[in-house]
Amino acid sequence: MKEELFNFVSIQLDRNGKTPLYVQLYDALREAILCGQLTEGYLLPPVRRLAAETGINAGTVVSAYRLLEKNGYIRAKRGSGFFVTDILVQSDEREDTREESTFLPHMTPVTDGIDLLSASPSPDYIRVTDFKRVINEVLDRDGGYAFGYQDGQGYYPLRQAMAGYLTKCGIRATADDVHTISGAQQGIDIVAKAVLSFGDYVLVERPTYAGAIGAFRSRGAKIIDAPMTEDGIDMDAVEDALRRFRPKLIYVMPNIQNPTGYSYSNAKKNRLLGLARRYQTLILEDDYISELDYSEDKLSPLKALDRDERVIYCKSFSKMFMPGLRLGFLVVPNRKRAHILAAKQQSDGSTAGLTQRAFDLYLRNGIWAKHSRSIYDVYRARHREMRALLEEHLPHTVTVYPARGGLTYWLKLPSGISAKRTAETLAERGVLVQEGSAFFVNMGLDRFLRVSFAAEEGDRLREGIRILGQIITKEMK
Amino acid sequence: MKEELFNFVSIQLDRNGKTPLYVQLYDALREAILCGQLTEGYLLPPVRRLAAETGINAGTVVSAYRLLEKNGYIRAKRGSGFFVTDILVQSDEREDTREESTFLPHMTPVTDGIDLLSASPSPDYIRVTDFKRVINEVLDRDGGYAFGYQDGQGYYPLRQAMAGYLTKCGIRATADDVHTISGAQQGIDIVAKAVLSFGDYVLVERPTYAGAIGAFRSRGAKIIDAPMTEDGIDMDAVEDALRRFRPKLIYVMPNIQNPTGYSYSNAKKNRLLGLARRYQTLILEDDYISELDYSEDKLSPLKALDRDERVIYCKSFSKMFMPGLRLGFLVVPNRKRAHILAAKQQSDGSTAGLTQRAFDLYLRNGIWAKHSRSIYDVYRARHREMRALLEEHLPHTVTVYPARGGLTYWLKLPSGISAKRTAETLAERGVLVQEGSAFFVNMGLDRFLRVSFAAEEGDRLREGIRILGQIITKEMK
Repeated sequence: MKEELFNFVSIQLDRNGKTPLYVQLYDALREAILCGQLTEGYLLPPVRRLAAETGINAGTVVSAYRLLEKNGYIRAKRGSGFFVTDILVQSDEREDTREESTFLPHMTPVTDGIDLLSASPSPDYIRVTDFKRVINEVLDRDGGYAFGYQDGQGYYPLRQAMAGYLTKCGIRATADDVHTISGAQQGIDIVAKAVLSFGDYVLVERPTYAGAIGAFRSRGAKIIDAPMTEDGIDMDAVEDALRRFRPKLIYVMPNIQNPTGYSYSNAKKNRLLGLARRYQTLILEDDYISELDYSEDKLSPLKALDRDERVIYCKSFSKMFMPGLRLGFLVVPNRKRAHILAAKQQSDGSTAGLTQRAFDLYLRNGIWAKHSRSIYDVYRARHREMRALLEEHLPHTVTVYPARGGLTYWLKLPSGISAKRTAETLAERGVLVQEGSAFFVNMGLDRFLRVSFAAEEGDRLREGIRILGQIITKEMK
Repeated sequence: MKEELFNFVSIQLDRNGKTPLYVQLYDALREAILCGQLTEGYLLPPVRRLAAETGINAGTVVSAYRLLEKNGYIRAKRGSGFFVTDILVQSDEREDTREESTFLPHMTPVTDGIDLLSASPSPDYIRVTDFKRVINEVLDRDGGYAFGYQDGQGYYPLRQAMAGYLTKCGIRATADDVHTISGAQQGIDIVAKAVLSFGDYVLVERPTYAGAIGAFRSRGAKIIDAPMTEDGIDMDAVEDALRRFRPKLIYVMPNIQNPTGYSYSNAKKNRLLGLARRYQTLILEDDYISELDYSEDKLSPLKALDRDERVIYCKSFSKMFMPGLRLGFLVVPNRKRAHILAAKQQSDGSTAGLTQRAFDLYLRNGIWAKHSRSIYDVYRARHREMRALLEEHLPHTVTVYPARGGLTYWLKLPSGISAKRTAETLAERGVLVQEGSAFFVNMGLDRFLRVSFAAEEGDRLREGIRILGQIITKEMK
């Protein structure tokens, strides 16, 4: 067990950070306890051993353990060291953390300031006249039936239209394989319900989408993560985790990962599928943005390579099109269909019928194709512009992760600069960015920011990046 | 522990039923195991004792135990009797039952036959022109912003409008207390997420809404129930359950309960609130239909009497208005607001903005008031007509539960008549009704039907009830 502490509970200490080391250690262990990675009765490593292995002094470890004990997370047992307490039954504690852990800041609309936070396109790019036409066409055609109870799996003609759309993306699907959902967040929540029971393990990328962490935690799952590298998740870490923890689910964003922007190589995609088969686990592929891949050689969805029905594929269009419409789709292996349908019915019965009918016409009438081309052109240009702005205004010690698509860049600040503090200072100057800690299951390094070019352009975008560069440079002095 | 088997695992055997007694007993125990009321390691009562206490012979108990053992639910231990196995880790078993337990038949649209099943109004009563006007007004006014990411708690002006509406119903609420949700089913699911952890107890009415049972089960909660009587839930059973199990949540429909049609007296409402306070538990009040109370003296919501912030109030309009719109509201005590918001964000981020904006105008422009008056008049008349039809066509041995409102009647068939078989025979004759077992946490008596007058009228309604009477009469011979 003790080895796991260091392989699967990522304790990353920032020796140059302004947060005292013992508080960093306390936070990392507290997180691991609260998210269920260290469970009741778990014996923490002896002080000297942890000190030796992390390279910090024993007094620091003692201080962290004392603070954990004081706050009720661990308990000393005479002669045997410290045990994790049954923190889950202390409902007030648990509830507090649930609240903080599931806060999804990017879902809160930004109303003023320079918005480098929202990762969804500006409402100004939505062609309301087109949508108005289809919605009126639906109301004239279907009357009150557009508002009746809907099939829990979704409006059949739309599922047909989506199956056609997905086939063009290399995913062989029929209307029977497609489930309509109310956006990707609901897709993740439904899959969690259908696949995970309390205490099951789920494997995710590090870093990963905060909303997924929240949904898995809420389900009582234990979350383990494996690091993202430039050509995809670290496969050795994945295999190790599969062997040791047998997770029921692997949650990945293989193309233009959120937040890193990295994409998997085909070799890694195939290896992941092979491992899922070997360890009899399911994969949830979250494809939230593949339409915004600006490279010539298009990426293939993992699902397109799935010969063994291991992948549940989740598609949403929120990053390109009307995030407030709350519409998405799952492609579900046959043997999981009934479970997904039951979880959907428990969740909200069905997705609103009017929305489904309108989007069906939108797809069939070719409006979607037209809209997505124009959005693509706008953001491809801005993606290049943003890269140039980041190179111009940020110190060279900031790492800008290469991204072949999407609406954001992921930044690593120089050692010793706190991302949280930088984000706060930026906010005071009227510039909003996403600091990176929300993307980590456990406390990560306080050095990441995600900056978006979805909602700003031209002078305002330039001004935002200029201020960001200025603040980082100032912090470095 | 043994007493609980008989108080809280309701084993109701129908000696005159066509299902063999040992199968009935098997089903009841299997249900209790699968829904977590009898947990791993639980020692079943000795054969002779269970036989004596249920008044059936020992051979019947042995047969039921053997069948449970054969199917892996229990295990014999030499010299000590039968134990419940760790059925939860047998994931295929668990998944099978999840599927069957959460099937919500009334959410599947009925396309032919006489529909006494759907408990939502016919789409023909929806005034599409009114809705078209408000939706176009919203699109012209808000443009693409109607589709941007929405506040997770809901569109503020709509929350204001709802607070005003609820104040007229006796519920003092401000926009801050109101959360927009995607229908009542989501409301129940969100409250389950915010309040219940795996293994927590929840107390419900017997019988109760199947969708709530599904949501609580999916959360891993243990469900206990207390019987409904004509003036509300059996309060002694409630107090006993509170004392012994300390449920985290009580789920009730105090006005025109689904499916019985019963309503709580004010005395019972106040006693329930007092008990919730004394035992520090929360109540989820599901108000799905109070607008369709046809009596002169209007019922008060439980929430209107809640002086101690014990009640989460869930309001949906699906039974009166556009069920496929997926819109509802929660009124949440201050101390639970953050938890509910986090659970909502995990569930689907937010409810579709366009729907919220359109309904906001619908309320503010007085269209809702006009629509609800006309729906009320239609169904008040039909409620009386249905009662007369039931009295005319059903044998007197069928109990028709008195209902002061709503869209359905709850029927108890004479002893010896199987409701399941009756429903099947009716379906063969082209008449669809809801058989009652879905409304029971554990296997209930196979003698209940719910018949709806929401979707049919006139000759078709009469014909449906005539056939129902004919089939019951035939079965009785």
